[in-house]
Amino acid sequence: MTTTAYLNDHRDRFMDELFTLLRIPSVSTDKKHNDDTHACAVQVQEYLVRAGLDKATLYPTDGHPIVFAEKIIDPSLPTILVYGHYDVQPAAPLDEWNSEPFEPVIKKTKIHPEGAIFGRGTTDDKGQMFIHVKAVETMIKTDKLPCNVKFMIEGEEEIGSPNLLPFIKQYKEMLKSDVILISDTSLLSKKHPSITVGLRGLTYLDVKVTSARADMHSGLFGGAVANPINTLCEMIASLKDEKKHITIPGFYDDVVFPSDRDRDMMRNAPFDEQEYMDSPGVFGLEGEEGYHTYERTGILPTLDCNGIWGGFTEEGSKTIIPAVANAKISMRLVSQQDHEKITELFSKHFKSIAPSSVKVEVHPHHGGNPYVTPTDTVEYRAAAAAMVETFGVEPVPMYEGGSIPIVAAFKEVLEVETILMGFGFDTDGLHSPNEHFGVWNFYKGIETVPVFFKKYAEMKTTVA
Amino acid sequence: MTTTAYLNDHRDRFMDELFTLLRIPSVSTDKKHNDDTHACAVQVQEYLVRAGLDKATLYPTDGHPIVFAEKIIDPSLPTILVYGHYDVQPAAPLDEWNSEPFEPVIKKTKIHPEGAIFGRGTTDDKGQMFIHVKAVETMIKTDKLPCNVKFMIEGEEEIGSPNLLPFIKQYKEMLKSDVILISDTSLLSKKHPSITVGLRGLTYLDVKVTSARADMHSGLFGGAVANPINTLCEMIASLKDEKKHITIPGFYDDVVFPSDRDRDMMRNAPFDEQEYMDSPGVFGLEGEEGYHTYERTGILPTLDCNGIWGGFTEEGSKTIIPAVANAKISMRLVSQQDHEKITELFSKHFKSIAPSSVKVEVHPHHGGNPYVTPTDTVEYRAAAAAMVETFGVEPVPMYEGGSIPIVAAFKEVLEVETILMGFGFDTDGLHSPNEHFGVWNFYKGIETVPVFFKKYAEMKTTVA
Repeated sequence: MTTTAYLNDHRDRFMDELFTLLRIPSVSTDKKHNDDTHACAVQVQEYLVRAGLDKATLYPTDGHPIVFAEKIIDPSLPTILVYGHYDVQPAAPLDEWNSEPFEPVIKKTKIHPEGAIFGRGTTDDKGQMFIHVKAVETMIKTDKLPCNVKFMIEGEEEIGSPNLLPFIKQYKEMLKSDVILISDTSLLSKKHPSITVGLRGLTYLDVKVTSARADMHSGLFGGAVANPINTLCEMIASLKDEKKHITIPGFYDDVVFPSDRDRDMMRNAPFDEQEYMDSPGVFGLEGEEGYHTYERTGILPTLDCNGIWGGFTEEGSKTIIPAVANAKISMRLVSQQDHEKITELFSKHFKSIAPSSVKVEVHPHHGGNPYVTPTDTVEYRAAAAAMVETFGVEPVPMYEGGSIPIVAAFKEVLEVETILMGFGFDTDGLHSPNEHFGVWNFYKGIETVPVFFKKYAEMKTTVA
Repeated sequence: MTTTAYLNDHRDRFMDELFTLLRIPSVSTDKKHNDDTHACAVQVQEYLVRAGLDKATLYPTDGHPIVFAEKIIDPSLPTILVYGHYDVQPAAPLDEWNSEPFEPVIKKTKIHPEGAIFGRGTTDDKGQMFIHVKAVETMIKTDKLPCNVKFMIEGEEEIGSPNLLPFIKQYKEMLKSDVILISDTSLLSKKHPSITVGLRGLTYLDVKVTSARADMHSGLFGGAVANPINTLCEMIASLKDEKKHITIPGFYDDVVFPSDRDRDMMRNAPFDEQEYMDSPGVFGLEGEEGYHTYERTGILPTLDCNGIWGGFTEEGSKTIIPAVANAKISMRLVSQQDHEKITELFSKHFKSIAPSSVKVEVHPHHGGNPYVTPTDTVEYRAAAAAMVETFGVEPVPMYEGGSIPIVAAFKEVLEVETILMGFGFDTDGLHSPNEHFGVWNFYKGIETVPVFFKKYAEMKTTVA
């Protein structure tokens, strides 16, 4: 029996089991849901056991537990480590949902004519994570598992995975694998499959410019002293040139662009500018000269103010020269950029451009490194070949703008590359009300993953 | 009995009465203090009655009332109209005060070895305004009032005097006078008296830059859409060139500098740079290249941000591209600059420099024109002679940086010149935490004003 035939025989049960998982409000950030979040981990553990995996275990952490399981069929064969998460974002604002966030329902939409499952966590990440549980079940039950597989499913992704890095450091040997497989990103569309090959890193800082001990009367001092708001504006403005290129010395030193072939594929991928603009209601696109929007959000680093404040900000007018101005500034990083190095370059440069009439403080928040999946590897070729077989088209290697900081850590600690093979759509409402996940996408994932396992095992064994 | 003898007999009571006035938090901009502000007007009215003035009346306005009183001893004699205000700036930020803003205390400081009264409104303007109430009391009670006197004390100076212009238009006849006398400015120092002969005008605007309907995820959109904070910073930075010269086309068209002689007198007036810097604790002076500090604050116009806000401004980090950024921008005007014309020039220019990816709104607040006192008049000579008598030195004619927009309107509507005989110091912390007013300055004012009355009445009568 083929894995696809097994899938077809068990379609309804697979969906029922996913619904059970979706009904558990595993909101990791909300302590009121701690019992639910734990119950969800137990449910995942049970499904892994039922799928035929061994050693399914809940590993306690300082926060929510990590579920681990494995199926070692032959230690000499390659091993795929599946990562996913069972926790979800809060459902709020509740009054913007058209159905109960934790009572999944299937409804048809324009781009999901076969129906989509509406509910919190459907695409991010329970539905996508469960694809792997069910795909592995189809392989085990039909005796078609071609290599070893391990699962590491955490419950704190939505709060920044605070306990995952210590866990992977501690259990490095148990987690030993040849490749990591994650479904927590998006496809371009049904007709245009894609594999995410780039995730941006991030550095985030608070800056403070002070010119005096206290606010001053703008009549008495205006014109003769530094105004820290004007100064901060001038400093921020100077961080980009007229082409929106960032001017911090050394900033681009570790930026390596993808191959021309990859860039061409990305530039030629379908892009509906109006649809992209409509979602946040932007008035116009703007970015570094000479680049496509996909390049601006995928392969270029950014520098953005996330917040700014200083002086008198209430109703009316107050004629002061403020003593202090503040801003929050973040940079999305790409390629080989290192967040600690960039933080240092920024701090040094920002202080150097300040006039002597002000004092400047820079306080870094969290950060994370970018991650790029190499496309000339066995695992990428296997993933692309699997998609060609189930979608009929070669996938586009896409560089995405968001960050999954733990992926860079996997590379550093576990020393393996990650394949980001997502099956959702960007329009599925992640983190928003009415989150959903296509029924077609769910089954297409369960169909595709075993093909990847097969091709990867074959190609890896041949290479070895 | 001389006025000075009367003053000496009543020193403590005068101070007690001022304290009563200072304890009333008459913050005109804050609706929560409307009752306090009204109570302060009533208190001023009561003190005018006690000083011996007639017709002390509260004139209601659309905002806070105006207190009027007069003492007409002979309609054929000249009339001096005293203007002042009983409202104060907000006390915020409260945690930077070393004593309660509305519980005055006397403490010694380096430049106030006789003590200074600390509290909101001490120098701006309750203490200075009260000098005239007490000076006139000394003249009336000792039978030494040499001419007629009128008082017009308003409660909306700190919010731009929105109801004073209609009032002086309506009551032009009642306010008829030969000269207006105001103490709401500063002396150079105890040893170097000065009379303010120039006041800057003001235009004050709110600007708003919007790029989208809602805040955006900085991963998905960062790099491809306009960030209104960065855009606003770039727009603000472009409003001045590297020499801090304002770049708005036409901005300097109506700026005429004083004569070389006046500029020389001002440049040669005593200036203690360290003392000037110490009062607000500024880290360094900064202004348009090629000008003395007195020129930068007296005869040059300015452009300053008074406040800025946008995006995420709380603790921690939030990875958004904000949809909106706001700033409050004010310009101090000089010479012949007209605030309405400058408001229009600014608005037109600010909108013209915005990229097409954002929408810009400009909302003007209040404004006022600059004022210059001629120095070749009876009233200026009388004021200078009074100061020679009580200070022992000829006063320097000073161009000051602050604005009393209504003074230009007095000239236009009431058709009389104004003598700006201030008794505070620039270092007294006007509009700032720990505002104070010297005890020496308070009594020196009460001593000087009757001398001005006497000399002015004499000289004016002789001329007539």
